[in-house]
Amino acid sequence: LSHKLPWNLFTQIFKMVLITIQLVMFGNRRITFVEYVESNNIAMKHLFLLHWTPDFETMPYPPTTGPYAIYTSNDLVDHINFAMKQFSHTESLTLGPIRFPDGGFDMAKYLYMCVEQCKEGNVLKNGTYSLDQHVIKDCLHLIPERAYNNGSQETETKFDIMAILKKNNKSLVFDRILKIELKFRLKSYRVSVEKAVNEPECYRIDGMVVFDNTNRNGQMAVHLSTSLKEFICGAEFDDVSTNDSDRFGIVLDIFVMILCVVSFSFCIRSFSIAYALFQHTVDEVKDIPKVLNLICSMKFEFVDLWLVLIIINDVLFVTGSIVKICLENKHAESSSENYDICALMLGIGCGLAFMGIIRYVAFFAKYNILTVVLKKAFPDLMKFLVTTTILYLGSLLCGWVVLGPYHIKFRHLSTASECLFSLINGDEMFTTFSATMTDNTVIWYFSRFYMYTFLVLFIYAATNLFIAVILGTYDIIKHLSKHVREILWTKTKIKW
Amino acid sequence: LSHKLPWNLFTQIFKMVLITIQLVMFGNRRITFVEYVESNNIAMKHLFLLHWTPDFETMPYPPTTGPYAIYTSNDLVDHINFAMKQFSHTESLTLGPIRFPDGGFDMAKYLYMCVEQCKEGNVLKNGTYSLDQHVIKDCLHLIPERAYNNGSQETETKFDIMAILKKNNKSLVFDRILKIELKFRLKSYRVSVEKAVNEPECYRIDGMVVFDNTNRNGQMAVHLSTSLKEFICGAEFDDVSTNDSDRFGIVLDIFVMILCVVSFSFCIRSFSIAYALFQHTVDEVKDIPKVLNLICSMKFEFVDLWLVLIIINDVLFVTGSIVKICLENKHAESSSENYDICALMLGIGCGLAFMGIIRYVAFFAKYNILTVVLKKAFPDLMKFLVTTTILYLGSLLCGWVVLGPYHIKFRHLSTASECLFSLINGDEMFTTFSATMTDNTVIWYFSRFYMYTFLVLFIYAATNLFIAVILGTYDIIKHLSKHVREILWTKTKIKW
Amino acid sequence: LSHKLPWNLFTQIFKMVLITIQLVMFGNRRITFVEYVESNNIAMKHLFLLHWTPDFETMPYPPTTGPYAIYTSNDLVDHINFAMKQFSHTESLTLGPIRFPDGGFDMAKYLYMCVEQCKEGNVLKNGTYSLDQHVIKDCLHLIPERAYNNGSQETETKFDIMAILKKNNKSLVFDRILKIELKFRLKSYRVSVEKAVNEPECYRIDGMVVFDNTNRNGQMAVHLSTSLKEFICGAEFDDVSTNDSDRFGIVLDIFVMILCVVSFSFCIRSFSIAYALFQHTVDEVKDIPKVLNLICSMKFEFVDLWLVLIIINDVLFVTGSIVKICLENKHAESSSENYDICALMLGIGCGLAFMGIIRYVAFFAKYNILTVVLKKAFPDLMKFLVTTTILYLGSLLCGWVVLGPYHIKFRHLSTASECLFSLINGDEMFTTFSATMTDNTVIWYFSRFYMYTFLVLFIYAATNLFIAVILGTYDIIKHLSKHVREILWTKTKIKW
Amino acid sequence: LSHKLPWNLFTQIFKMVLITIQLVMFGNRRITFVEYVESNNIAMKHLFLLHWTPDFETMPYPPTTGPYAIYTSNDLVDHINFAMKQFSHTESLTLGPIRFPDGGFDMAKYLYMCVEQCKEGNVLKNGTYSLDQHVIKDCLHLIPERAYNNGSQETETKFDIMAILKKNNKSLVFDRILKIELKFRLKSYRVSVEKAVNEPECYRIDGMVVFDNTNRNGQMAVHLSTSLKEFICGAEFDDVSTNDSDRFGIVLDIFVMILCVVSFSFCIRSFSIAYALFQHTVDEVKDIPKVLNLICSMKFEFVDLWLVLIIINDVLFVTGSIVKICLENKHAESSSENYDICALMLGIGCGLAFMGIIRYVAFFAKYNILTVVLKKAFPDLMKFLVTTTILYLGSLLCGWVVLGPYHIKFRHLSTASECLFSLINGDEMFTTFSATMTDNTVIWYFSRFYMYTFLVLFIYAATNLFIAVILGTYDIIKHLSKHVREILWTKTKIKW
Repeated sequence: LSHKLPWNLFTQIFKMVLITIQLVMFGNRRITFVEYVESNNIAMKHLFLLHWTPDFETMPYPPTTGPYAIYTSNDLVDHINFAMKQFSHTESLTLGPIRFPDGGFDMAKYLYMCVEQCKEGNVLKNGTYSLDQHVIKDCLHLIPERAYNNGSQETETKFDIMAILKKNNKSLVFDRILKIELKFRLKSYRVSVEKAVNEPECYRIDGMVVFDNTNRNGQMAVHLSTSLKEFICGAEFDDVSTNDSDRFGIVLDIFVMILCVVSFSFCIRSFSIAYALFQHTVDEVKDIPKVLNLICSMKFEFVDLWLVLIIINDVLFVTGSIVKICLENKHAESSSENYDICALMLGIGCGLAFMGIIRYVAFFAKYNILTVVLKKAFPDLMKFLVTTTILYLGSLLCGWVVLGPYHIKFRHLSTASECLFSLINGDEMFTTFSATMTDNTVIWYFSRFYMYTFLVLFIYAATNLFIAVILGTYDIIKHLSKHVREILWTKTKIKW
Repeated sequence: LSHKLPWNLFTQIFKMVLITIQLVMFGNRRITFVEYVESNNIAMKHLFLLHWTPDFETMPYPPTTGPYAIYTSNDLVDHINFAMKQFSHTESLTLGPIRFPDGGFDMAKYLYMCVEQCKEGNVLKNGTYSLDQHVIKDCLHLIPERAYNNGSQETETKFDIMAILKKNNKSLVFDRILKIELKFRLKSYRVSVEKAVNEPECYRIDGMVVFDNTNRNGQMAVHLSTSLKEFICGAEFDDVSTNDSDRFGIVLDIFVMILCVVSFSFCIRSFSIAYALFQHTVDEVKDIPKVLNLICSMKFEFVDLWLVLIIINDVLFVTGSIVKICLENKHAESSSENYDICALMLGIGCGLAFMGIIRYVAFFAKYNILTVVLKKAFPDLMKFLVTTTILYLGSLLCGWVVLGPYHIKFRHLSTASECLFSLINGDEMFTTFSATMTDNTVIWYFSRFYMYTFLVLFIYAATNLFIAVILGTYDIIKHLSKHVREILWTKTKIKW
Repeated sequence: LSHKLPWNLFTQIFKMVLITIQLVMFGNRRITFVEYVESNNIAMKHLFLLHWTPDFETMPYPPTTGPYAIYTSNDLVDHINFAMKQFSHTESLTLGPIRFPDGGFDMAKYLYMCVEQCKEGNVLKNGTYSLDQHVIKDCLHLIPERAYNNGSQETETKFDIMAILKKNNKSLVFDRILKIELKFRLKSYRVSVEKAVNEPECYRIDGMVVFDNTNRNGQMAVHLSTSLKEFICGAEFDDVSTNDSDRFGIVLDIFVMILCVVSFSFCIRSFSIAYALFQHTVDEVKDIPKVLNLICSMKFEFVDLWLVLIIINDVLFVTGSIVKICLENKHAESSSENYDICALMLGIGCGLAFMGIIRYVAFFAKYNILTVVLKKAFPDLMKFLVTTTILYLGSLLCGWVVLGPYHIKFRHLSTASECLFSLINGDEMFTTFSATMTDNTVIWYFSRFYMYTFLVLFIYAATNLFIAVILGTYDIIKHLSKHVREILWTKTKIKW
Repeated sequence: LSHKLPWNLFTQIFKMVLITIQLVMFGNRRITFVEYVESNNIAMKHLFLLHWTPDFETMPYPPTTGPYAIYTSNDLVDHINFAMKQFSHTESLTLGPIRFPDGGFDMAKYLYMCVEQCKEGNVLKNGTYSLDQHVIKDCLHLIPERAYNNGSQETETKFDIMAILKKNNKSLVFDRILKIELKFRLKSYRVSVEKAVNEPECYRIDGMVVFDNTNRNGQMAVHLSTSLKEFICGAEFDDVSTNDSDRFGIVLDIFVMILCVVSFSFCIRSFSIAYALFQHTVDEVKDIPKVLNLICSMKFEFVDLWLVLIIINDVLFVTGSIVKICLENKHAESSSENYDICALMLGIGCGLAFMGIIRYVAFFAKYNILTVVLKKAFPDLMKFLVTTTILYLGSLLCGWVVLGPYHIKFRHLSTASECLFSLINGDEMFTTFSATMTDNTVIWYFSRFYMYTFLVLFIYAATNLFIAVILGTYDIIKHLSKHVREILWTKTKIKW
């Protein structure tokens, strides 16, 4: 038995180290790309959105400014005209290597506008409404007019959406508009000069400015979203040496996969040994029903949860690595969703791989107090949490429904829960108190009563009793006679 | 007895589930509406308020900008003129389906201005004041002049408040103005295209721009408030299918009410049984005065507080549901106050309903440690809180009166209390330190001394002793002999 | 003895109630006034400071914008010209009842400018400097020129600081300027229409715009400060009824003072009784030196610290009330400093009065756990704090000197201490991490190492051991035999 | 032995006091200088950067605005032209005593522009790219053209970068630009009028405006960095008295150094005594191998760690003081790096000096609970931390790789770690929740699950068990029999 120990442990440690390196490389590359996409998106916003300022480029919470939105029909026309004009000049304006696709021929230079509006919606003279909610979607390319300007005596391009619509026998009835989308497509390439990525990459940028009026409350939110998709461009790049770090990456991937398979087979073998042991025990005692029942009821004691954990992480990592290799060799579309899946698998795999190491740490009694205590305290904690969760849910629902309309943090059940959880841990208390915006004194007093009560109950009573349950278990384990403790440690230890 | 258990418990659980569904539906609808109203209000601000920017649309704390206010008489005139002009063009400007009421006839297109000013308030030549504090309120419709413009050779509408006032033989003496209100009325309808609300709703928007100078300190705060009231509009809506979720809602309401009544009757029956038991006991022992007294003094032991709680929640929920049905069928005005009352009743009812479930959880000893400990520790906690509260109040008053003028958080007793409570829980400490704005070194040193002392005393001593009292009770309960514990659990359990 | 109890206790409780009412009245009035002054100051800033925006009206921390400052000589001239122009139009611009003093005659309409500059400061051709650091202060009234404008064919007032200086044979050498002050004086009156203050009050507003360039780093900070002083104005106010709440206030003040004197005499009497008791004891045992010494060493046991506390609060309150009455009857100048002193005395007095009540609460053993534990644990806490304080000071100095240049919160010893104290209590941790602005990797790694180490040491070790010392004492007291505990309670109880 | 005690202790205390004074003087001077440099840098930004506003002068986190950047080629040209124009007028614009070096002759008045661009980068007609990544760096002085203006009939300087480049047969291909640097050099002197620094100092300001487009994502970040270097200017300063505080500083430095040397020798002597004692013991027992081994294994018990600590601090302080004297007497370049090294040595030295004092405090048992407990608990804490650290690292890597692209705080491993550490201590919880910006529901749910799990695990279990380990040790020490405790205290005490 003692001979096998090092191999398995060394495999795990070696795996962990390689996994970490692989993950850090993957993460760094990903985040560099995300920062590129984000800056690119911001650049587009500055180019195509009228009155866009850096003030809007902050975190969603705490808000330092209101939303970027339009409130008058004139503004809407101005915004569309501005976007049209700027887009047609993209190539000369932009500071990045951005070009129209197809050399700017065809319709590539023009925005493609789609308008969603209600089929009908008149206000009759007697003041009543007549509305047909059927939504009609109408699209056209915004090809600006060229007109002769008397002043400058030159033919100028006039970026006037109303004129274009008129020419196409269309019109915007501001009352009925639900959504306007301005779609555009650009292409770009990315070469990192300093930190060499694999090799220069070409991207197709699919952008869309959305003027969203679906709520029809007078506030038309404006969003600009871009999505980058890689494509094989017929580019000639001089002086791009094939990248060593790239090759190293693939070698590493393969190595990690081999290690995972090895680790996987180790675990399977352990399982089969455990199963054999179980079968053997059953065979031995099958004539004594009472003992047999006992053994059978202990069936799950033979399953080492740590091994299950390691197996899951191996599976996740092998799958993740395969996805990663595919992504990097462009066999799969390098869209964000694929990367997310890959990141999830690698990330969770890595987290579990680290936890798997704890299994070996647990050999030395004092090293894994945390897991032993948690395992032992788990049933009591769950029981304790029943009452607490009921109280928490009751408070949550009550707070959400009463304070929701007057408190930005209680608007949604999820944010309300996050807010309460944060409050319990002492975060943003004063801000939460002061964010109650109401003139209704009943609501105001309720909010104070609600928050003080909730906080005192949960901060001082609930969390401390929760901790007391954990520490109680810790005390029990600490004061167990040495003999019993050994057994306890052993039971949570690994079975080879 | 064991036969009855499931029925009551099942009733409660079923009730809880239905209540939660009902509440979530109610809350979602409410919050959707509130978001509509809020966005609508913001849209109005952008339309009618000069120089309004999204910067003002943030949370009240921490402030990211000063208040939206006017400081010069020219600005005041500009603001009023701007509001007049914009309002008269509302129909063409707005992006929402907003119209003047009554087809824009009569005075509907004009703002209605009310000015509150002091009756007299002259500054005599010798530099003394002469003031009559009687407040005069003066109202008129702001009907703009039409004048011939020499430049453009057209008749133009001139939005000039001073000219209008002159024509009406009135004037604004900026010195004496206390408050100017610009009232307007608009109508709008709301159709949610994606998430269908019951059916399209028509709203009357009563708006008011208030220029508030009652403090007369040179800063004239400007507010725009709107209130939406539903009215039956003679609208023709095509393609609006009657809403299934709506019908489901009413069925749910009725079901919940029935369940509440059932639960209520269960509780009443339990009470009557308990009372009968009490009477029976009294009858049995009425000849032994000593025992009788004992029994009588235990009178309240026969009242199960959990049942009281469930009864209260049943009453609240039935009332709340009735209010809700009335509101949704427009028998009551769907004003915010009514909705608040309804939300309060349903919200608190739901909170109590969840707590009521704990009564049944309490059957299993380890599940309701929280409530048992709190009930047992309650007297000690209250006793402990006496001293602590006195200290807290003393500190609060002292801090408020000394630091109030120099610290935004200590301006009001309520915010001072919230600030201290937040500080105790470790929130906004540095901000609170740094928000002391004073040149007076005595005050500065006092503020530092005050805060360090208060914090050390309350964070390290008071709260931890509070927790120690709770945990002390927990320890006692944990270490009670099994027999005594059983009794204790039983006593806090339900009596059928 | 039992007869006396109620009187003293009732006196204290009654005193506390009255004191609270008095304090709340005083605080409310004060804070209303402070809000008036603050809004007035903001109004002045909007009137006289060029490009002042509400963005600057936020809290000092966290900063949402940089300081309001000037960076070019053109800007400086523009700012001064703007201030001149606006000030001369104050009466017509302002929305508050603000007037020039003395009816605007004499120099009242003109700003009074004082320039502090170095006596000499030339840059010689060869690139060396010649500097005389003697500071010269030069003042003049800024009387604008009137000039004939060819365009509009009218005589216009030209607000041009350079022309004015030229006319006075003066000049601004931007290189040498240390400070420019623009002083002005206005008058105003304040009548609260809704919440009646005593009676209308007249204020002299002494304002000053300071352009501060003493650091001469190219950034000229601009401040506008105002101070309001009340004066007796010969105003005629109609319809101002004498204020009832005012009279009530004075009656209350007198009542409180009487109560304080009564309470004071009670305490003195208790002291004399205690002293008599001490003397008596000494007399009894004066023949037995050993016992005498023992008694003498217990001398301070005869002094009840609670009584000292009550006496201090009585003295503070009587003095504070007298100051308050003087202030309100205008026998003393109602400057901010006087109000601060008054607030300090009343505030601290009130805080101590509340603590004084604890003395009586302490009769009932379980009610004053807090004070008993703290008193008992005090020596141990102090001993514990010795090491902790040394560690804290060492960390503080180290952090301040190393991180100070790169971290806004570590700029000053006081803010560094506040920052560390806040960090220990879990506030602004991430912000503090991220506020380290340095390109020096050594400093960056040091800052991380420093903060992680400090936090782990203090959050997990120091504060919890501190709490453990307190709770240890609590445990000891809790587990003392009932007899000993009684004695302990008694010792901390009052002696009549 | 008792005779020696005071000397060593007094030396340490005296040293600590002097060190603190020295450090505070050094820190104050440094921070005053840093504030000067910072304000100067901000002034430069206002002078040379187009559209720079105070909004950009805030803390890096939480961001109140986006980055200061350029997005269009027109803007880039405008920015460069603006910088050229403003720089040429620096002397007349600035409010600080800033001058061109060399009297403005030669090229001193012109910006020096360096452009880094790709060698080639064409977009071929067929839409493919041709790129040569070789970076070419090209520099020239921006000497503006002088041109005759027909309108004003005057010769004007035209600040037009495109014209200048054209004249030099160069051009900007916006596509290929990687980085543009505008370098400039100015000189300034600094005289603190109020708080006299040593004597007036002359600085050479090396500034650089960097337009950074290396990522080529369309966003060109703009930075202005300045570095101040002192130089001996041939200035004549009248009225600058030699500074007393300066002399005092040097005397203090020398005194501190002497004290450190004395303290150092004390420590060395203690070591030698300890070593002699060890040798003596070894000699005594060298014939009994078992005891000898025991003694040898206790070798490190003879080394007093406190002494090592004091020795390190002495060495650091002497070195630091020498560096400091050199810096202040200008024997070394007073660059920021040197000051950083000096600050690090003095700062850490001071921190250790304070800790050194604890050695003497430890004589009195109850005074150094903190260090005794920590020393005793150290092995257990380390063992406990093994598991916890593994879990923490696993969570960190997992969170970073999955949430990184969607969460500003998880962008870098260092910030992710700081974020998690802050969360554990209850900071910025709600903000962290709400900063997850993703439309991917899988990621959203993962982020919630991840954060709730991580927080509950670490806040309630890990940190409390960590504390329990510490407090367990404290309990053990507290309950040790008095005799054993004495020994324990003694062992951690100093050996003379």
